[in-house]
Amino acid sequence: MQSALMLQGMFLLALAAEAMTAALAAGRRRMDWVGVALLGCVTALGGGSLRDVLLGHHPLSWVEQPWYLGLAGGAALATIAIARFVHHLRLVFLFLDAVGLVAFTIAGCNVAMEMNQSFAIIIVAGMITGCAGGVMRDVLCNDVPLLFRSELYASVSVVTGCIYVLALGQGLNHDLVILATFAAGMTLRLLAIRNNWEMPKFIYTKKLH
Amino acid sequence: MQSALMLQGMFLLALAAEAMTAALAAGRRRMDWVGVALLGCVTALGGGSLRDVLLGHHPLSWVEQPWYLGLAGGAALATIAIARFVHHLRLVFLFLDAVGLVAFTIAGCNVAMEMNQSFAIIIVAGMITGCAGGVMRDVLCNDVPLLFRSELYASVSVVTGCIYVLALGQGLNHDLVILATFAAGMTLRLLAIRNNWEMPKFIYTKKLH
Amino acid sequence: MQSALMLQGMFLLALAAEAMTAALAAGRRRMDWVGVALLGCVTALGGGSLRDVLLGHHPLSWVEQPWYLGLAGGAALATIAIARFVHHLRLVFLFLDAVGLVAFTIAGCNVAMEMNQSFAIIIVAGMITGCAGGVMRDVLCNDVPLLFRSELYASVSVVTGCIYVLALGQGLNHDLVILATFAAGMTLRLLAIRNNWEMPKFIYTKKLH
Repeated sequence: MQSALMLQGMFLLALAAEAMTAALAAGRRRMDWVGVALLGCVTALGGGSLRDVLLGHHPLSWVEQPWYLGLAGGAALATIAIARFVHHLRLVFLFLDAVGLVAFTIAGCNVAMEMNQSFAIIIVAGMITGCAGGVMRDVLCNDVPLLFRSELYASVSVVTGCIYVLALGQGLNHDLVILATFAAGMTLRLLAIRNNWEMPKFIYTKKLH
Repeated sequence: MQSALMLQGMFLLALAAEAMTAALAAGRRRMDWVGVALLGCVTALGGGSLRDVLLGHHPLSWVEQPWYLGLAGGAALATIAIARFVHHLRLVFLFLDAVGLVAFTIAGCNVAMEMNQSFAIIIVAGMITGCAGGVMRDVLCNDVPLLFRSELYASVSVVTGCIYVLALGQGLNHDLVILATFAAGMTLRLLAIRNNWEMPKFIYTKKLH
Repeated sequence: MQSALMLQGMFLLALAAEAMTAALAAGRRRMDWVGVALLGCVTALGGGSLRDVLLGHHPLSWVEQPWYLGLAGGAALATIAIARFVHHLRLVFLFLDAVGLVAFTIAGCNVAMEMNQSFAIIIVAGMITGCAGGVMRDVLCNDVPLLFRSELYASVSVVTGCIYVLALGQGLNHDLVILATFAAGMTLRLLAIRNNWEMPKFIYTKKLH
């Protein structure tokens, strides 16, 4: 088994999955088809783009491989066709979303490691790649980003990134590390959803001035 | 006639026009004069800036030519003075907005072509330049971006970009291509407004989780 | 006294102060602890990051010094612990916020001056560094940015930047210039708050189309 090939496959699956969840968010805001496709592209590719822009890592993936835009936009538009069945596919979507989180996190860590960034920045790069697309989706839908409000999402990304980088640092086989990271990250994410694990909330109601 | 000069003139007109529509949006949100000028600058120069940041194309136009900021901010502030007459100028504004869309699209395609980007990225660069400033304006005004919801705006930009790039690829005279692109793009945009052409909407009302 | 050391101290104080005001905004939106820490980082480091990305100035400060992220996130989280006393500290917060505005403005001007940018871009770089983090905070909290609506904030940043750059241009002692800039900028900002100085607002209620 080749780890590069598996990662690429997971990455493409994740791209499509993120675009599809973005399409549902677009549908809730009654966007038109162009809006659906654009929001799909921003959500699926925005996290990686932000990471690359912040790290000065050019060219961006979709500039080099413009068919990524076609994949994300196409997946978003395809969601319109299957929208009436989507609620039967709820579990599939949650599963794909978890795949997306882990695959994007690993991809982000890999980019930062290739640039010889420090450990902290590698983890941050993974988290930005995994989470920032969803923040952009929520901002464009005029919502307070879900990332900031609920569930273990950023936390799962950070833990996943740490497992991945630390295991690689032990000199373990790359294929094995990827499999173990996926197993750990997805288990954590799916358990968090199933058990409604949440971070404590900070509630403050006064005005400063 | 020199195409470079004509394009530059159209570009400056477009800068001012985008800043003026941003000023009206700012007025609807009761922003102060500083906010009006800032929103004018972000709207007029944000699309080109995003394109340049994503493509790694430095320095940005307004960093090299800081008077662009003065033009955009000044046009936004001037709008305050003429606000009471603006509704008489409705058609002028819609016309200038269409000029802006086409001029920015062409300017964005030109930048990407100078960087030898692929056809797809040239079109995307044109669309980002033409449309992203308006998205930033809407996000800063706390609206769901109009771009995602209504009218043929992004679509006009894509069609305009395709006409421009394909016609240039035929080896036609640059002046002629620019004129033809303006004619086609503006006709399409103004017809879309007049006839309320819209993309079909995607409406989805369920929650995933 | 060494100006570099003093500036660095003020900068770190400003980072923490901006993160703490962000934490209060997060608390008003009932974000969880991860959201509090993330919003603190974005608010404290977002302005400088945007400046660097727009000017093509890599690596970003927090990429080189990842402990800035720890400081900002830690200050945001510490705010949760002291939240019940915060309203007694109202004046301290307003004071720290003013320190932040001036320190970030000076830091932004310094970066642009090191890059030999023009006077206008130096002032803009200072203003982006001082103000953009707060705009990101408001966008992520789903508010119309305060910057665009009230008080002398961007204006104070512009005036502060002008004083700093012009005084340096006179060949005055750097320590002295920094002290004078702090005195002038903070006086202006605190007077603006105390006296409710406001820019005139632009109110426009019609729709264009």
